[in-house]
Amino acid sequence: MATLVLLRHGESEWNAKGLFTGWVDVKLSSAGEAEARRGGRLLLDAEVRPDVVHTSVLTRAIQTANLALGAADLLWLPVTRSWRLNERHYGALQGKNKAQTREEFGDEQFALWRRSYDTPPPPLADDDEFSQVGDARYGMLPPELMPRTECLKDVVHRMLPYWYDSVVPDLAAGRTTLVVAHGNSLRALVKHLDGIGDDEIAKLNIPTGIPLRYDLDADYKPLKAGGEYLDPEAAKAAIEAVANQGK
Amino acid sequence: MATLVLLRHGESEWNAKGLFTGWVDVKLSSAGEAEARRGGRLLLDAEVRPDVVHTSVLTRAIQTANLALGAADLLWLPVTRSWRLNERHYGALQGKNKAQTREEFGDEQFALWRRSYDTPPPPLADDDEFSQVGDARYGMLPPELMPRTECLKDVVHRMLPYWYDSVVPDLAAGRTTLVVAHGNSLRALVKHLDGIGDDEIAKLNIPTGIPLRYDLDADYKPLKAGGEYLDPEAAKAAIEAVANQGK
Repeated sequence: MATLVLLRHGESEWNAKGLFTGWVDVKLSSAGEAEARRGGRLLLDAEVRPDVVHTSVLTRAIQTANLALGAADLLWLPVTRSWRLNERHYGALQGKNKAQTREEFGDEQFALWRRSYDTPPPPLADDDEFSQVGDARYGMLPPELMPRTECLKDVVHRMLPYWYDSVVPDLAAGRTTLVVAHGNSLRALVKHLDGIGDDEIAKLNIPTGIPLRYDLDADYKPLKAGGEYLDPEAAKAAIEAVANQGK
Repeated sequence: MATLVLLRHGESEWNAKGLFTGWVDVKLSSAGEAEARRGGRLLLDAEVRPDVVHTSVLTRAIQTANLALGAADLLWLPVTRSWRLNERHYGALQGKNKAQTREEFGDEQFALWRRSYDTPPPPLADDDEFSQVGDARYGMLPPELMPRTECLKDVVHRMLPYWYDSVVPDLAAGRTTLVVAHGNSLRALVKHLDGIGDDEIAKLNIPTGIPLRYDLDADYKPLKAGGEYLDPEAAKAAIEAVANQGK
Protein backbone atom coordinates (compact mmCIF):
# COMPACT_ATOMS: atom_id res chain seq x y z
CA MET A 1 0.00 0.00 0.00
CA ALA A 2 1.28 3.42 -0.97
CA THR A 3 0.36 6.83 0.43
CA LEU A 4 -0.17 9.85 -1.80
CA VAL A 5 -0.74 13.33 -0.38
CA LEU A 6 -2.10 16.16 -2.53
CA LEU A 7 -1.70 19.81 -1.53
CA ARG A 8 -3.23 22.71 -3.44
CA HIS A 9 -1.37 26.02 -3.09
CA GLY A 10 -2.88 28.71 -0.90
CA GLU A 11 -4.24 32.08 -1.97
CA SER A 12 -2.10 33.90 -4.54
CA GLU A 13 -1.90 37.62 -5.19
CA TRP A 14 -4.23 37.14 -8.15
CA ASN A 15 -6.69 34.83 -6.36
CA ALA A 16 -7.02 37.69 -3.89
CA LYS A 17 -7.80 40.09 -6.75
CA GLY A 18 -10.23 37.71 -8.47
CA LEU A 19 -8.19 37.39 -11.69
CA PHE A 20 -7.80 34.33 -13.91
CA THR A 21 -4.19 33.25 -13.38
CA GLY A 22 -3.40 29.99 -15.18
CA TRP A 23 0.27 29.95 -16.14
CA VAL A 24 0.95 33.57 -15.09
CA ASP A 25 3.63 33.21 -12.42
CA VAL A 26 2.18 35.17 -9.50
CA LYS A 27 3.30 34.77 -5.90
CA LEU A 28 1.37 33.70 -2.82
CA SER A 29 -0.40 36.41 -0.83
CA SER A 30 0.52 36.55 2.85
CA ALA A 31 -2.74 34.68 3.54
CA GLY A 32 -1.55 32.02 1.08
CA GLU A 33 1.80 31.78 2.88
CA ALA A 34 -0.03 31.21 6.16
CA GLU A 35 -2.17 28.49 4.52
CA ALA A 36 0.98 26.74 3.31
CA ARG A 37 2.55 26.74 6.77
CA ARG A 38 -0.68 25.42 8.23
CA GLY A 39 -0.63 22.63 5.63
CA GLY A 40 2.83 21.64 6.88
CA ARG A 41 1.66 21.63 10.49
CA LEU A 42 -1.30 19.41 9.51
CA LEU A 43 1.20 16.90 8.05
CA LEU A 44 3.17 16.99 11.32
CA ASP A 45 0.06 16.62 13.50
CA ALA A 46 -1.25 13.70 11.42
CA GLU A 47 2.23 12.12 11.47
CA VAL A 48 2.17 11.88 7.68
CA ARG A 49 5.82 12.16 6.69
CA PRO A 50 6.40 12.41 2.93
CA ASP A 51 9.57 10.84 1.55
CA VAL A 52 9.55 12.77 -1.74
CA VAL A 53 7.88 15.86 -3.17
CA HIS A 54 6.66 16.81 -6.64
CA THR A 55 5.70 20.37 -7.61
CA SER A 56 4.72 22.29 -10.71
CA VAL A 57 7.18 24.89 -12.05
CA LEU A 58 4.94 27.77 -10.90
CA THR A 59 6.22 29.89 -8.03
CA ARG A 60 3.03 29.74 -5.95
CA ALA A 61 3.13 25.93 -5.78
CA ILE A 62 6.87 25.91 -5.03
CA GLN A 63 6.45 28.54 -2.30
CA THR A 64 3.65 26.40 -0.84
CA ALA A 65 5.86 23.31 -0.86
CA ASN A 66 8.79 25.19 0.69
CA LEU A 67 6.70 26.78 3.44
CA ALA A 68 4.81 23.57 4.25
CA LEU A 69 8.03 21.52 4.30
CA GLY A 70 9.75 24.20 6.39
CA ALA A 71 6.91 24.04 8.95
CA ALA A 72 7.24 20.23 9.02
CA ASP A 73 11.09 20.30 9.25
CA LEU A 74 11.26 18.47 5.92
CA LEU A 75 13.02 20.97 3.66
CA TRP A 76 15.65 18.31 2.95
CA LEU A 77 13.25 16.04 1.03
CA PRO A 78 14.12 15.26 -2.59
CA VAL A 79 11.95 17.36 -4.89
CA THR A 80 11.09 17.11 -8.57
CA ARG A 81 9.27 19.78 -10.59
CA SER A 82 7.36 19.55 -13.84
CA TRP A 83 5.33 21.84 -16.08
CA ARG A 84 2.95 18.86 -16.36
CA LEU A 85 1.70 19.67 -12.83
CA ASN A 86 1.04 23.33 -13.74
CA GLU A 87 -2.35 24.97 -13.37
CA ARG A 88 -4.63 24.83 -16.41
CA HIS A 89 -3.54 27.39 -19.02
CA TYR A 90 -6.48 29.79 -19.07
CA GLY A 91 -5.81 31.08 -22.60
CA ALA A 92 -7.10 34.57 -23.39
CA LEU A 93 -8.72 34.77 -19.94
CA GLN A 94 -5.30 34.99 -18.22
CA GLY A 95 -5.07 38.35 -16.47
CA LYS A 96 -8.82 39.01 -16.80
CA ASN A 97 -11.11 39.72 -13.85
CA LYS A 98 -13.43 36.78 -13.08
CA ALA A 99 -16.49 38.84 -12.11
CA GLN A 100 -16.08 41.18 -15.14
CA THR A 101 -15.68 38.20 -17.47
CA ARG A 102 -18.87 36.70 -16.09
CA GLU A 103 -20.68 39.99 -16.63
CA GLU A 104 -19.28 40.47 -20.15
CA PHE A 105 -19.88 36.97 -21.49
CA GLY A 106 -22.80 35.81 -19.36
CA ASP A 107 -23.29 33.02 -16.84
CA GLU A 108 -23.43 30.22 -19.37
CA GLN A 109 -20.22 31.03 -21.26
CA PHE A 110 -18.45 31.77 -17.99
CA ALA A 111 -19.46 28.39 -16.52
CA LEU A 112 -18.43 26.64 -19.76
CA TRP A 113 -14.92 28.15 -19.70
CA ARG A 114 -14.52 27.58 -15.99
CA ARG A 115 -15.97 24.15 -15.53
CA SER A 116 -16.71 22.34 -18.80
CA TYR A 117 -14.47 19.35 -19.42
CA ASP A 118 -13.62 19.99 -23.04
CA THR A 119 -14.26 23.64 -23.96
CA PRO A 120 -11.05 25.67 -23.69
CA PRO A 121 -11.16 29.50 -23.60
CA PRO A 122 -9.86 31.27 -26.74
CA PRO A 123 -6.07 30.89 -27.13
CA LEU A 124 -3.72 33.53 -25.73
CA ALA A 125 -1.66 35.40 -28.34
CA ASP A 126 2.09 34.82 -28.09
CA ASP A 127 2.71 38.56 -27.85
CA ASP A 128 0.15 39.06 -25.06
CA GLU A 129 1.66 40.47 -21.87
CA PHE A 130 0.38 37.38 -20.02
CA SER A 131 1.82 34.82 -22.46
CA GLN A 132 4.56 32.45 -21.22
CA VAL A 133 6.02 31.87 -24.67
CA GLY A 134 9.74 32.66 -24.34
CA ASP A 135 9.86 32.02 -20.57
CA ALA A 136 13.15 30.21 -19.84
CA ARG A 137 11.42 27.65 -17.63
CA TYR A 138 9.68 26.26 -20.70
CA GLY A 139 12.82 26.37 -22.84
CA MET A 140 12.91 22.55 -22.99
CA LEU A 141 9.39 22.31 -24.50
CA PRO A 142 9.17 21.96 -28.28
CA PRO A 143 6.69 24.58 -29.60
CA GLU A 144 3.93 22.04 -30.22
CA LEU A 145 3.90 21.13 -26.52
CA MET A 146 3.56 24.71 -25.24
CA PRO A 147 -0.14 25.39 -24.55
CA ARG A 148 -1.91 28.62 -25.56
CA THR A 149 -5.11 27.55 -23.81
CA GLU A 150 -6.36 24.41 -22.12
CA CYS A 151 -9.59 22.76 -21.01
CA LEU A 152 -9.54 20.28 -18.14
CA LYS A 153 -9.35 17.43 -20.66
CA ASP A 154 -6.09 18.90 -22.00
CA VAL A 155 -4.75 19.07 -18.44
CA VAL A 156 -5.61 15.40 -17.85
CA HIS A 157 -3.75 14.47 -21.04
CA ARG A 158 -0.58 16.41 -20.29
CA MET A 159 -0.59 15.58 -16.55
CA LEU A 160 -1.02 11.80 -16.79
CA PRO A 161 2.40 11.04 -18.35
CA TYR A 162 4.00 12.66 -15.28
CA TRP A 163 1.78 10.67 -12.94
CA TYR A 164 2.71 7.41 -14.63
CA ASP A 165 6.40 8.09 -15.27
CA SER A 166 7.46 10.10 -12.20
CA VAL A 167 4.95 9.77 -9.35
CA VAL A 168 3.94 6.12 -9.64
CA PRO A 169 7.59 4.90 -9.49
CA ASP A 170 7.96 6.70 -6.13
CA LEU A 171 4.77 5.06 -4.86
CA ALA A 172 5.95 1.71 -6.22
CA ALA A 173 9.14 2.10 -4.18
CA GLY A 174 6.99 2.53 -1.05
CA ARG A 175 7.61 6.27 -0.72
CA THR A 176 4.95 8.48 0.80
CA THR A 177 4.62 11.00 -1.98
CA LEU A 178 3.54 14.64 -1.71
CA VAL A 179 2.28 16.44 -4.83
CA VAL A 180 1.99 20.22 -4.45
CA ALA A 181 0.10 21.73 -7.34
CA HIS A 182 -2.99 23.62 -8.47
CA GLY A 183 -6.78 23.51 -8.48
CA ASN A 184 -7.06 22.05 -11.94
CA SER A 185 -3.97 19.84 -12.16
CA LEU A 186 -5.11 18.23 -8.89
CA ARG A 187 -8.72 17.95 -10.14
CA ALA A 188 -7.29 16.17 -13.19
CA LEU A 189 -5.39 13.76 -10.96
CA VAL A 190 -8.33 13.16 -8.62
CA LYS A 191 -10.58 12.56 -11.66
CA HIS A 192 -8.18 9.84 -12.73
CA LEU A 193 -7.74 8.32 -9.26
CA ASP A 194 -11.42 8.28 -8.31
CA GLY A 195 -12.67 7.52 -11.82
CA ILE A 196 -14.90 10.60 -11.89
CA GLY A 197 -16.94 11.15 -15.08
CA ASP A 198 -16.38 14.04 -17.51
CA ASP A 199 -19.56 15.85 -16.39
CA GLU A 200 -19.37 14.99 -12.72
CA ILE A 201 -15.87 16.50 -12.35
CA ALA A 202 -17.35 19.98 -12.84
CA LYS A 203 -18.74 19.81 -9.31
CA LEU A 204 -15.44 18.85 -7.64
CA ASN A 205 -13.57 21.60 -5.79
CA ILE A 206 -10.34 20.95 -3.93
CA PRO A 207 -9.70 23.34 -1.03
CA THR A 208 -6.39 25.17 -0.73
CA GLY A 209 -3.74 24.41 1.88
CA ILE A 210 -5.32 21.27 3.33
CA PRO A 211 -3.40 18.05 2.62
CA LEU A 212 -5.58 15.38 1.00
CA ARG A 213 -4.40 11.86 1.76
CA TYR A 214 -5.02 8.86 -0.48
CA ASP A 215 -3.99 5.37 0.54
CA LEU A 216 -3.64 3.44 -2.70
CA ASP A 217 -3.91 -0.24 -3.50
CA ALA A 218 -1.50 -2.28 -5.62
CA ASP A 219 -3.11 -0.85 -8.78
CA TYR A 220 -2.61 2.72 -7.51
CA LYS A 221 -6.33 3.17 -6.98
CA PRO A 222 -7.79 4.69 -3.78
CA LEU A 223 -8.73 2.35 -0.96
CA LYS A 224 -11.31 5.00 -0.03
CA ALA A 225 -12.94 7.08 -2.79
CA GLY A 226 -12.12 10.78 -2.44
CA GLY A 227 -9.32 10.22 0.04
CA GLU A 228 -9.22 11.97 3.41
CA TYR A 229 -8.48 15.60 4.17
CA LEU A 230 -6.17 16.04 7.15
CA ASP A 231 -8.59 18.70 8.44
CA PRO A 232 -12.05 17.50 7.27
CA GLU A 233 -14.02 20.34 8.88
CA ALA A 234 -11.90 23.07 7.31
CA ALA A 235 -12.00 21.23 3.97
CA LYS A 236 -15.82 21.17 4.00
CA ALA A 237 -16.05 24.90 4.70
CA ALA A 238 -13.41 25.73 2.06
CA ILE A 239 -15.05 23.59 -0.64
CA GLU A 240 -18.24 25.60 -0.22
CA ALA A 241 -16.32 28.88 -0.47
CA VAL A 242 -14.56 27.83 -3.71
CA ALA A 243 -17.89 26.78 -5.24
CA ASN A 244 -19.11 30.35 -4.75
CA GLN A 245 -16.05 31.95 -6.42
CA GLY A 246 -16.90 34.52 -9.10
CA LYS A 247 -20.48 34.90 -7.81
CA MET B 1 33.05 26.27 -21.35
CA ALA B 2 30.87 25.62 -18.31
CA THR B 3 29.92 28.00 -15.50
CA LEU B 4 29.82 26.90 -11.88
CA VAL B 5 28.53 29.18 -9.12
CA LEU B 6 29.20 28.42 -5.45
CA LEU B 7 27.13 29.97 -2.66
CA ARG B 8 27.86 29.52 1.04
CA HIS B 9 24.83 29.82 3.33
CA GLY B 10 24.44 32.97 5.38
CA GLU B 11 24.60 33.32 9.15
CA SER B 12 22.76 30.60 11.06
CA GLU B 13 21.29 30.76 14.55
CA TRP B 14 24.37 28.94 15.84
CA ASN B 15 26.90 31.00 13.87
CA ALA B 16 25.33 33.97 15.65
CA LYS B 17 25.89 32.25 19.01
CA GLY B 18 29.47 31.16 18.21
CA LEU B 19 28.73 27.41 18.45
CA PHE B 20 30.27 24.61 16.39
CA THR B 21 27.40 23.40 14.20
CA GLY B 22 28.53 20.76 11.69
CA TRP B 23 25.61 18.44 10.95
CA VAL B 24 23.29 19.91 13.60
CA ASP B 25 20.32 21.14 11.57
CA VAL B 26 19.97 24.76 12.71
CA LYS B 27 18.10 27.43 10.76
CA LEU B 28 19.32 30.70 9.28
CA SER B 29 19.21 33.78 11.51
CA SER B 30 17.28 36.72 10.06
CA ALA B 31 20.68 38.21 9.10
CA GLY B 32 21.40 34.96 7.25
CA GLU B 33 18.06 35.18 5.45
CA ALA B 34 18.93 38.71 4.31
CA GLU B 35 22.34 37.48 3.08
CA ALA B 36 20.64 34.76 1.04
CA ARG B 37 18.26 37.22 -0.63
CA ARG B 38 21.19 39.50 -1.40
CA GLY B 39 23.01 36.54 -2.97
CA GLY B 40 20.02 36.07 -5.28
CA ARG B 41 20.00 39.74 -6.23
CA LEU B 42 23.73 39.54 -7.02
CA LEU B 43 22.97 36.71 -9.46
CA LEU B 44 20.28 38.86 -11.10
CA ASP B 45 22.51 41.94 -11.29
CA ALA B 46 25.40 39.97 -12.77
CA GLU B 47 23.01 38.27 -15.22
CA VAL B 48 24.24 34.88 -14.07
CA ARG B 49 21.23 32.61 -14.52
CA PRO B 50 21.71 29.09 -13.16
CA ASP B 51 19.98 26.24 -14.98
CA VAL B 52 20.18 23.75 -12.11
CA VAL B 53 20.83 23.83 -8.37
CA HIS B 54 22.51 21.44 -5.95
CA THR B 55 22.23 21.76 -2.16
CA SER B 56 23.21 19.80 0.92
CA VAL B 57 20.43 18.21 3.01
CA LEU B 58 20.90 20.76 5.81
CA THR B 59 18.10 23.29 6.32
CA ARG B 60 20.35 26.37 6.38
CA ALA B 61 21.72 25.63 2.89
CA ILE B 62 18.26 24.81 1.52
CA GLN B 63 16.79 28.00 3.03
CA THR B 64 19.66 29.93 1.43
CA ALA B 65 18.97 28.34 -1.96
CA ASN B 66 15.21 28.98 -1.67
CA LEU B 67 15.60 32.61 -0.62
CA ALA B 68 18.28 33.37 -3.22
CA LEU B 69 16.28 31.69 -5.99
CA GLY B 70 13.13 33.46 -4.84
CA ALA B 71 14.92 36.82 -5.06
CA ALA B 72 16.13 35.91 -8.56
CA ASP B 73 12.67 34.61 -9.68
CA LEU B 74 14.21 31.18 -10.20
CA LEU B 75 12.33 29.03 -7.69
CA TRP B 76 11.31 26.75 -10.56
CA LEU B 77 14.86 25.49 -11.24
CA PRO B 78 15.46 21.75 -10.89
CA VAL B 79 17.19 21.03 -7.58
CA THR B 80 19.09 18.02 -6.26
CA ARG B 81 20.19 17.54 -2.66
CA SER B 82 22.91 15.36 -1.16
CA TRP B 83 24.42 14.68 2.25
CA ARG B 84 27.74 14.71 0.38
CA LEU B 85 27.49 18.53 0.22
CA ASN B 86 26.86 18.79 3.99
CA GLU B 87 29.06 20.83 6.28
CA ARG B 88 31.99 18.99 7.89
CA HIS B 89 30.78 16.81 10.78
CA TYR B 90 32.38 18.48 13.77
CA GLY B 91 32.35 15.37 15.99
CA ALA B 92 32.30 15.93 19.74
CA LEU B 93 32.63 19.69 19.17
CA GLN B 94 29.07 19.91 17.78
CA GLY B 95 27.03 22.13 20.09
CA LYS B 96 30.13 23.47 21.88
CA ASN B 97 30.99 27.18 22.13
CA LYS B 98 33.96 28.11 19.92
CA ALA B 99 35.52 30.64 22.29
CA GLN B 100 35.10 28.32 25.32
CA THR B 101 36.61 25.42 23.36
CA ARG B 102 39.59 27.58 22.48
CA GLU B 103 40.02 28.54 26.13
CA GLU B 104 39.62 24.96 27.39
CA PHE B 105 41.93 23.24 24.89
CA GLY B 106 44.33 26.02 23.94
CA ASP B 107 45.13 27.85 20.72
CA GLU B 108 47.12 25.02 19.16
CA GLN B 109 44.54 22.25 19.62
CA PHE B 110 41.76 24.64 18.61
CA ALA B 111 43.55 25.58 15.39
CA LEU B 112 44.27 21.91 14.66
CA TRP B 113 40.63 20.90 14.96
CA ARG B 114 39.40 23.92 13.06
CA ARG B 115 41.89 24.13 10.26
CA SER B 116 44.20 21.12 10.00
CA TYR B 117 43.61 19.01 6.91
CA ASP B 118 43.67 15.59 8.51
CA THR B 119 43.04 15.83 12.26
CA PRO B 120 39.35 15.26 13.07
CA PRO B 121 37.90 16.23 16.46
CA PRO B 122 37.00 13.31 18.77
CA PRO B 123 33.93 11.39 17.48
CA LEU B 124 30.45 12.28 18.66
CA ALA B 125 28.67 9.55 20.64
CA ASP B 126 25.56 8.15 18.94
CA ASP B 127 23.47 8.94 22.02
CA ASP B 128 24.69 12.55 22.21
CA GLU B 129 21.90 15.11 21.93
CA PHE B 130 23.69 16.58 18.89
CA SER B 131 24.17 13.26 17.04
CA GLN B 132 22.36 12.76 13.71
CA VAL B 133 22.31 8.97 13.99
CA GLY B 134 18.66 7.96 13.51
CA ASP B 135 17.72 11.13 11.58
CA ALA B 136 15.37 10.09 8.77
CA ARG B 137 17.23 12.18 6.21
CA TYR B 138 20.21 9.82 6.54
CA GLY B 139 18.05 6.69 6.50
CA MET B 140 19.52 5.68 3.11
CA LEU B 141 23.13 5.67 4.44
CA PRO B 142 24.55 2.32 5.53
CA PRO B 143 26.04 2.70 9.03
CA GLU B 144 29.64 2.69 7.80
CA LEU B 145 28.94 5.80 5.69
CA MET B 146 27.46 7.86 8.53
CA PRO B 147 30.21 10.10 9.95
CA ARG B 148 30.75 10.62 13.69
CA THR B 149 33.48 13.21 13.06
CA GLU B 150 35.33 14.52 10.02
CA CYS B 151 38.47 16.41 9.11
CA LEU B 152 38.57 18.39 5.86
CA LYS B 153 40.28 15.44 4.15
CA ASP B 154 37.25 13.29 5.00
CA VAL B 155 34.98 15.96 3.50
CA VAL B 156 37.01 16.00 0.28
CA HIS B 157 36.69 12.21 0.04
CA ARG B 158 32.93 12.06 0.59
CA MET B 159 32.19 15.21 -1.46
CA LEU B 160 34.14 14.33 -4.63
CA PRO B 161 31.90 11.42 -5.74
CA TYR B 162 28.98 13.87 -5.83
CA TRP B 163 31.02 16.38 -7.79
CA TYR B 164 32.00 13.77 -10.36
CA ASP B 165 28.69 11.91 -10.59
CA SER B 166 26.10 14.66 -10.19
CA VAL B 167 27.58 18.13 -10.76
CA VAL B 168 30.00 17.45 -13.63
CA PRO B 169 27.25 15.87 -15.81
CA ASP B 170 25.24 19.11 -15.50
CA LEU B 171 28.31 21.15 -16.49
CA ALA B 172 29.01 18.71 -19.34
CA ALA B 173 25.47 19.36 -20.63
CA GLY B 174 26.28 23.09 -20.73
CA ARG B 175 24.16 23.97 -17.69
CA THR B 176 25.15 26.89 -15.50
CA THR B 177 25.25 25.09 -12.17
CA LEU B 178 24.66 26.58 -8.72
CA VAL B 179 25.95 24.72 -5.65
CA VAL B 180 24.59 26.00 -2.33
CA ALA B 181 26.48 24.52 0.57
CA HIS B 182 28.76 25.15 3.55
CA GLY B 183 32.10 26.62 4.55
CA ASN B 184 33.93 23.31 4.55
CA SER B 185 32.18 21.42 1.76
CA LEU B 186 32.85 24.42 -0.49
CA ARG B 187 36.46 24.67 0.73
CA ALA B 188 36.82 20.99 -0.19
CA LEU B 189 35.47 21.69 -3.66
CA VAL B 190 37.60 24.80 -4.18
CA LYS B 191 40.68 22.86 -3.00
CA HIS B 192 39.97 20.34 -5.74
CA LEU B 193 39.18 22.91 -8.44
CA ASP B 194 42.13 25.21 -7.75
CA GLY B 195 44.55 22.41 -6.85
CA ILE B 196 45.27 23.93 -3.43
CA GLY B 197 47.76 22.02 -1.20
CA ASP B 198 46.82 20.27 2.05
CA ASP B 199 48.56 22.94 4.18
CA GLU B 200 47.67 25.94 2.07
CA ILE B 201 43.92 25.22 2.28
CA ALA B 202 43.96 26.15 5.98
CA LYS B 203 44.22 29.80 4.98
CA LEU B 204 41.25 29.76 2.60
CA ASN B 205 38.00 31.27 3.85
CA ILE B 206 34.89 31.51 1.68
CA PRO B 207 32.56 34.37 2.61
CA THR B 208 28.85 33.73 3.19
CA GLY B 209 26.09 34.85 0.84
CA ILE B 210 28.29 36.05 -2.03
CA PRO B 211 28.10 33.94 -5.20
CA LEU B 212 31.54 32.77 -6.38
CA ARG B 213 31.69 32.21 -10.11
CA TYR B 214 34.05 29.78 -11.82
CA ASP B 215 34.24 29.50 -15.57
CA LEU B 216 35.63 26.05 -16.26
CA ASP B 217 37.56 24.62 -19.19
CA ALA B 218 36.89 21.31 -20.96
CA ASP B 219 38.63 19.46 -18.09
CA TYR B 220 36.40 21.20 -15.52
CA LYS B 221 39.32 23.25 -14.23
CA PRO B 222 39.07 27.02 -13.57
CA LEU B 223 40.01 29.39 -16.38
CA LYS B 224 40.94 31.83 -13.61
CA ALA B 225 42.33 30.48 -10.33
CA GLY B 226 40.06 31.29 -7.38
CA GLY B 227 37.12 32.26 -9.56
CA GLU B 228 35.37 35.61 -9.21
CA TYR B 229 33.06 36.80 -6.46
CA LEU B 230 30.01 38.63 -7.78
CA ASP B 231 30.68 41.33 -5.16
CA PRO B 232 34.51 41.40 -4.84
CA GLU B 233 34.64 44.25 -2.30
CA ALA B 234 32.15 42.63 0.08
CA ALA B 235 33.95 39.29 -0.36
CA LYS B 236 37.28 40.81 0.67
CA ALA B 237 35.81 42.35 3.82
CA ALA B 238 33.94 39.15 4.73
CA ILE B 239 36.99 36.91 4.24
CA GLU B 240 38.86 38.99 6.80
CA ALA B 241 35.96 38.74 9.25
CA VAL B 242 35.79 34.91 8.94
CA ALA B 243 39.55 34.63 9.51
CA ASN B 244 39.06 36.34 12.87
CA GLN B 245 36.25 33.99 13.99
CA GLY B 246 36.75 32.51 17.49
CA LYS B 247 39.35 35.17 18.40
